[in-house]
Amino acid sequence: MCGIIGVENTSQAAALVGAGLITLQHRGEESAGVTFSGVENMRTLRCMGLASNIFNDDMLTKKCARASIGHVRYTTSSKSSLINAQPFQMSCIHGRIAVAHNGNITNFLQLKETLEKRGDIFTHTSDTEILLHLMAMSKSGTLSKIVGEALKQLDGAFSIVVLRGKTLVGARDKNGFRPLVLGKIKKSYIIASESVAIEALGGNYIRDIMPGEVIEIEQGEIKSSFEYTKEVNQRTCIFEQVYFSRADSLAFGKTVKEARVQMGMLLADQMKEICKSADMVIPVPDSGFYAAQGFSRRSKIIFEMGFIRNHYVGRSFIKPLQALRDLTAKLKLSPIKEVVKGKEIILIDDSMVRGTTSKRIIAALKKAGARKIHFALSCPPIIAPCYYGIDTPLKDHLIAANNSIEQMRKYLGVDSLTFLSLQNLIDSCQGNGGKNCFCCACFNGKYPTNISKLSFKTT
Amino acid sequence: MCGIIGVENTSQAAALVGAGLITLQHRGEESAGVTFSGVENMRTLRCMGLASNIFNDDMLTKKCARASIGHVRYTTSSKSSLINAQPFQMSCIHGRIAVAHNGNITNFLQLKETLEKRGDIFTHTSDTEILLHLMAMSKSGTLSKIVGEALKQLDGAFSIVVLRGKTLVGARDKNGFRPLVLGKIKKSYIIASESVAIEALGGNYIRDIMPGEVIEIEQGEIKSSFEYTKEVNQRTCIFEQVYFSRADSLAFGKTVKEARVQMGMLLADQMKEICKSADMVIPVPDSGFYAAQGFSRRSKIIFEMGFIRNHYVGRSFIKPLQALRDLTAKLKLSPIKEVVKGKEIILIDDSMVRGTTSKRIIAALKKAGARKIHFALSCPPIIAPCYYGIDTPLKDHLIAANNSIEQMRKYLGVDSLTFLSLQNLIDSCQGNGGKNCFCCACFNGKYPTNISKLSFKTT
Amino acid sequence: MCGIIGVENTSQAAALVGAGLITLQHRGEESAGVTFSGVENMRTLRCMGLASNIFNDDMLTKKCARASIGHVRYTTSSKSSLINAQPFQMSCIHGRIAVAHNGNITNFLQLKETLEKRGDIFTHTSDTEILLHLMAMSKSGTLSKIVGEALKQLDGAFSIVVLRGKTLVGARDKNGFRPLVLGKIKKSYIIASESVAIEALGGNYIRDIMPGEVIEIEQGEIKSSFEYTKEVNQRTCIFEQVYFSRADSLAFGKTVKEARVQMGMLLADQMKEICKSADMVIPVPDSGFYAAQGFSRRSKIIFEMGFIRNHYVGRSFIKPLQALRDLTAKLKLSPIKEVVKGKEIILIDDSMVRGTTSKRIIAALKKAGARKIHFALSCPPIIAPCYYGIDTPLKDHLIAANNSIEQMRKYLGVDSLTFLSLQNLIDSCQGNGGKNCFCCACFNGKYPTNISKLSFKTT
Amino acid sequence: MCGIIGVENTSQAAALVGAGLITLQHRGEESAGVTFSGVENMRTLRCMGLASNIFNDDMLTKKCARASIGHVRYTTSSKSSLINAQPFQMSCIHGRIAVAHNGNITNFLQLKETLEKRGDIFTHTSDTEILLHLMAMSKSGTLSKIVGEALKQLDGAFSIVVLRGKTLVGARDKNGFRPLVLGKIKKSYIIASESVAIEALGGNYIRDIMPGEVIEIEQGEIKSSFEYTKEVNQRTCIFEQVYFSRADSLAFGKTVKEARVQMGMLLADQMKEICKSADMVIPVPDSGFYAAQGFSRRSKIIFEMGFIRNHYVGRSFIKPLQALRDLTAKLKLSPIKEVVKGKEIILIDDSMVRGTTSKRIIAALKKAGARKIHFALSCPPIIAPCYYGIDTPLKDHLIAANNSIEQMRKYLGVDSLTFLSLQNLIDSCQGNGGKNCFCCACFNGKYPTNISKLSFKTT
Repeated sequence: MCGIIGVENTSQAAALVGAGLITLQHRGEESAGVTFSGVENMRTLRCMGLASNIFNDDMLTKKCARASIGHVRYTTSSKSSLINAQPFQMSCIHGRIAVAHNGNITNFLQLKETLEKRGDIFTHTSDTEILLHLMAMSKSGTLSKIVGEALKQLDGAFSIVVLRGKTLVGARDKNGFRPLVLGKIKKSYIIASESVAIEALGGNYIRDIMPGEVIEIEQGEIKSSFEYTKEVNQRTCIFEQVYFSRADSLAFGKTVKEARVQMGMLLADQMKEICKSADMVIPVPDSGFYAAQGFSRRSKIIFEMGFIRNHYVGRSFIKPLQALRDLTAKLKLSPIKEVVKGKEIILIDDSMVRGTTSKRIIAALKKAGARKIHFALSCPPIIAPCYYGIDTPLKDHLIAANNSIEQMRKYLGVDSLTFLSLQNLIDSCQGNGGKNCFCCACFNGKYPTNISKLSFKTT
Repeated sequence: MCGIIGVENTSQAAALVGAGLITLQHRGEESAGVTFSGVENMRTLRCMGLASNIFNDDMLTKKCARASIGHVRYTTSSKSSLINAQPFQMSCIHGRIAVAHNGNITNFLQLKETLEKRGDIFTHTSDTEILLHLMAMSKSGTLSKIVGEALKQLDGAFSIVVLRGKTLVGARDKNGFRPLVLGKIKKSYIIASESVAIEALGGNYIRDIMPGEVIEIEQGEIKSSFEYTKEVNQRTCIFEQVYFSRADSLAFGKTVKEARVQMGMLLADQMKEICKSADMVIPVPDSGFYAAQGFSRRSKIIFEMGFIRNHYVGRSFIKPLQALRDLTAKLKLSPIKEVVKGKEIILIDDSMVRGTTSKRIIAALKKAGARKIHFALSCPPIIAPCYYGIDTPLKDHLIAANNSIEQMRKYLGVDSLTFLSLQNLIDSCQGNGGKNCFCCACFNGKYPTNISKLSFKTT
Repeated sequence: MCGIIGVENTSQAAALVGAGLITLQHRGEESAGVTFSGVENMRTLRCMGLASNIFNDDMLTKKCARASIGHVRYTTSSKSSLINAQPFQMSCIHGRIAVAHNGNITNFLQLKETLEKRGDIFTHTSDTEILLHLMAMSKSGTLSKIVGEALKQLDGAFSIVVLRGKTLVGARDKNGFRPLVLGKIKKSYIIASESVAIEALGGNYIRDIMPGEVIEIEQGEIKSSFEYTKEVNQRTCIFEQVYFSRADSLAFGKTVKEARVQMGMLLADQMKEICKSADMVIPVPDSGFYAAQGFSRRSKIIFEMGFIRNHYVGRSFIKPLQALRDLTAKLKLSPIKEVVKGKEIILIDDSMVRGTTSKRIIAALKKAGARKIHFALSCPPIIAPCYYGIDTPLKDHLIAANNSIEQMRKYLGVDSLTFLSLQNLIDSCQGNGGKNCFCCACFNGKYPTNISKLSFKTT
Repeated sequence: MCGIIGVENTSQAAALVGAGLITLQHRGEESAGVTFSGVENMRTLRCMGLASNIFNDDMLTKKCARASIGHVRYTTSSKSSLINAQPFQMSCIHGRIAVAHNGNITNFLQLKETLEKRGDIFTHTSDTEILLHLMAMSKSGTLSKIVGEALKQLDGAFSIVVLRGKTLVGARDKNGFRPLVLGKIKKSYIIASESVAIEALGGNYIRDIMPGEVIEIEQGEIKSSFEYTKEVNQRTCIFEQVYFSRADSLAFGKTVKEARVQMGMLLADQMKEICKSADMVIPVPDSGFYAAQGFSRRSKIIFEMGFIRNHYVGRSFIKPLQALRDLTAKLKLSPIKEVVKGKEIILIDDSMVRGTTSKRIIAALKKAGARKIHFALSCPPIIAPCYYGIDTPLKDHLIAANNSIEQMRKYLGVDSLTFLSLQNLIDSCQGNGGKNCFCCACFNGKYPTNISKLSFKTT
């Protein structure tokens, strides 16, 4: 998963993009990058780790930027390295262009093969590079047309921001898998993966960029087109609301937090029998927080913090503590004995992928004295890998793809195991207005696009 | 404020101390340090910033440590530098000794003057250095006696751990201002500022080290003495429970979290009239969380997360964003419009020192559309500086020392302003068992020790 | 200017390449890079500054490399950045290929325009990137043919090493502007810019790679071809021997040191009249050392070290001492008063480009008390820019292109100014065997290739 | 060995000290430090490695320094760490004082024991710390008296600079083992280990500080005293001229370079027989350079550079190349085959300590084809350890202390081995004026001070 952002029409563009990346940091902690274009040149800064590392004096003090785009990257892949940190910048017949991408181009391997045959070279190991080649080969003139011509050839999921000189382009695939929103700060437009970036920068959210839409902005003027694809067919990733998006981001007119509270409420409805004897509802922090809150409100069972999460135990910490590996999990999440001892507990998390983390958390809770544990997830079992940008593993490693509910319950060692039903999840995620269509492929295996054996998966 | 820890009788002592510092990190993010003693030598590693930076291969992979102590330091003072990072290590007639200290020696300046007159030198700018000199001048033999002879001469607050060879000493001042607890991991004893460090390392909490107690541990054998002072007089810092300690730490037989929930309940009792019309209770994250939870439980008013705190916006982030200073607060704490718009809100925080942060948070809440705001603090007004280790500023900068409640209410721009009464605070902090005595000097100006004009304050 | 090296057929290839770069460091201090290919993958490490920074554990301890190439880069251009550090690595229809290049492709701009028209993208700002594109477009199979097909289209100067899997290719342009030599260490072949790299690694120099030659080596087997160009026409850069190459490198069967000593001897012959009254010969360290030695031997005038060069004053030092800029030159080169006071001195340097450094050195010598200074250069006046890889500036900044000898003498403030004649320089550089042809364009303006207004110059 | 410097009466004091350290860098590459005192405070910056690392903005751009001292440290000891980097700064009854020291206090252990008995603490592992304690215990008022009272109690070798506020003190032990000179830059006095520091900073050398002298300087006014010791007895270290001092430093009215040339001349006189058949004189670069030059001048045998030294192979390089350890020496010093092949060579170095380096260099020369090698040293055999600051090893590791000349000749594998006689060395080092007395203890075992078994040796 990744986060992207673009800002135009201000000499503070690069600084705003940098600050915006920090609000999108939850979408990727592996690497960060900012491209900014001034009067004469275009420059890209990239770093491993958190976006706060990217800031340098040029970006902040010199008024060199008129427009800027940025990217944060997440990957569990071992190919993690600076070479794949985005934005990607290139020089071609259309001048200097930079791109930042969130998603996954499923026909990357086919396209790469074709381009290699004509003599093209690849210097990254990421699917995003194909976009640069296709843009460079376009015969069009305006940036939005160049982008559109390239996107036309892509399958899969992509929300992108593109920068050339003063011009900023934002676009979304025809299914609208990944989010992309439009906002305004004073005279500048801003495009970002989530509305929180716009809010935090002091701007106002305007609207979502639509599936299949390409927006071109230059010096405060905006043009929209839906030309590059004819078969717009909304299939927004429902897992964004379950797990990925920040709680205060908007989706379909309500906050993600609200959707999560509702998931918890409907989960409580599914578990009425269990609720009768339970002493308390406890979230796995921070992922199960809002669902647990909703569960407690609906069931009237008391909400308790049964774990303390140590926010100082970050990614960077994993390496130094290799010698104490078994301690790391404990340092990160501590059960509170005094809260849980002797209690019958409903433990809520957002989702379960491999099951290993859940098993460890449950074991800790039991060791701390919990008498009974009912484990509940605010989404259905994940039974199929994601080809659209979420780094779920292949089928073999998905616990729910290979085990019955009862088998999983035994594996986890809990007294009961409940998943939110898909219908309840969809109902929770629907906005107040009309009906939206979601991609639920990870829950039901129905992929909105063709997935052949050759389909490229980034992770 | 600072956090300290010591581990003995294991070749993993240094690694455990390092891991333990991460659980005590909330007590100080400025610098960290670890001293470990092996068969022949003693070595101290120190770093600026988070404790996770301290780890090095020697500490983790070589089995060179038999005992170890560590320290995390907090200061808002501009004299922040590596030279003052602890532990302090020295060589003297008693051999190599290292010390880590939490607290504030109020007669430091008098003692320093005396020692300088006899020709002593000082290489740090911290009060802790005086301890090294007094130990070096002791005529005693055992480490606990050396330490006791030094402590006898000190006024003020000090919880300390001391290391010499295989021997670990822990001690607390006669008032017991700062916490210090004892635990055990397998065959090793552990001494730490808070019980969470013991729990997270997989050990068991045994008991608090008592005011005026000196404990000496060597290879799993423990000796306690109360010899160095005759006038033991418990005055434990109550502000530890309001703000400083981690929620899952134990104090007087219950968790700090429990005390904070109770503060919120009693605050609700104080605000019955206001509760009648309020729509929701909102905590300032993360500091007001548990009090708000207690408030909601007692008042039955719905608990809502009205702000999202971005945990990626840390201390290290402040410098790069100088150019965007007004953005930094916003990036750290974002109000959620959709939650607060048009609502009458009870906003809960733990305490208010200068008032500037509270004012900014309240302004953000109003801008997000809150109709009415009742601001409530889970402690009384802070009217006097702390001389015992908390970095509250001098009287001139304490908002409550210089303004009436009504003046503060106007300054903050809220509809009402309520402080928990001191009696309610004390009641909340009492353990289940007998009666404990607290230092409430910051709330009532009654200092348990003599505070002359010469009294040393570290910050 | 740059230095390149390649090693094959050993698991220590990457380590040897790294060590070899240190012997070629005089050819470029700006950045360094190493590419190594193991069983499955190819990896490139690059750094700014000295080659000693490049070493990492993977390169040295894991036996992951079967073949490796490396590069050190020199540039005075402000576009200095990691993005242009070589080797360049790419993936294309022929697999993963890496290239390191010394020289300057003069028709780069024309080729780039052509390729951009067909839709190619460029991610560096260096002429070397064009080579990657041309190789990727080749229809050939073997690496040497792929390389040959690409080189066929290039004008200008290039010595290159290319790596694919276990295969190492080395090639030189048809004029042989830049040096490239072949050697062997045990069962491994080595290709390097200068013979010193081979010697220092414990190998044996075999022969120069010839102008127009492409050599392909795989697992100790070597194939040579001269197919890619028909008009081989040796024009080896004579300035390599004047200045660039290390003194102990071989050129045409003798050491560069020997050639430089001979330049000094012939210079002495040109200055017989002046020699009559001179007290001593002094080199500008370290550049004038060997010519001064030769001068002294021929003229019998005593050789003295009149300056001490401080080897600690490196490139990295320039920035910190900005506040003391006038001191930096002094710290680097100190005249010895006691040696030069009251003396008539013959001061020898290798060459003069802008004249500013010479002027400063001469001023320091006069201030130290020299009575008379005769300044002599072991090459002719530089009157034309180099398009073949030496970073001489454009004509406007070449002192000798814009001033008569007498004007330069006055500008420098010396009593006489002598340049080695071109014929004497050529005679000094001729090897013991037959006649070699040199490029002397910087001295006589006769470029061996077409130089149009569009010709690309890297610096 | 170490280098020290002090500058006063200028706002650029810290910058000048930093630059001066670079000219003294040959006296120690392990660590560097600068202390500067402004209007209110005193600050010390220290770093591992080269002095160029020490520079920071505060030191260079702010005009905060009125006076400053600096230090570069050399040690082969494994106790190398930042804790021992000087200057040492302390606060005591006399205020804030900093000290930088070159030499070795032989009665350190006795003094330390005494001070520990009275309760003093030690935080470094260096003998210099004793000085701080003794100054702190002084009852005197002026800085020079405080220093004098401390020095009175010391045995051994010490040249020191001391800083308090605007006051700079320089002092030398009664034997004058280590050099210390006085100079002036505009209105500022400068004290430094060698005259080169003064010259390079644009100042003028005034005179040597005398054995037993204490100089106090404040705002351009200078006071000298010889009060602290009555038995002044010059015994200047002769090894400074053989090896340690920079060639252009002054010693007794002539340059060190001149003395070294003379050593070579007298060595030639000792080797007349050998000279008859030798083909060339070759120095071990850079240490044997001037002696070889002198040898060549006297013997008329041609001087040749038979080795190239790679100045890029520094201390920092040793670690990364562990895997190629046998290559490191080769990379640093390459024999030139073409020069030495088939030749009878006189190889000159300055001194031989353990013999291992010489053996390796000679082996390389033989491998390069030298027919005969006569090895000559420009000093006598080193038979006794130095207790005065030179890091020669203990007797057991001194090759000449344990072997006859013939045994050493065989060990090295040379055709002859010659040492300069002690008388010839002393004659070479005598200045033009009167007679100076040298410490030649390393050559004759006669220590100018008492050396008991308890004598402290830093390395």
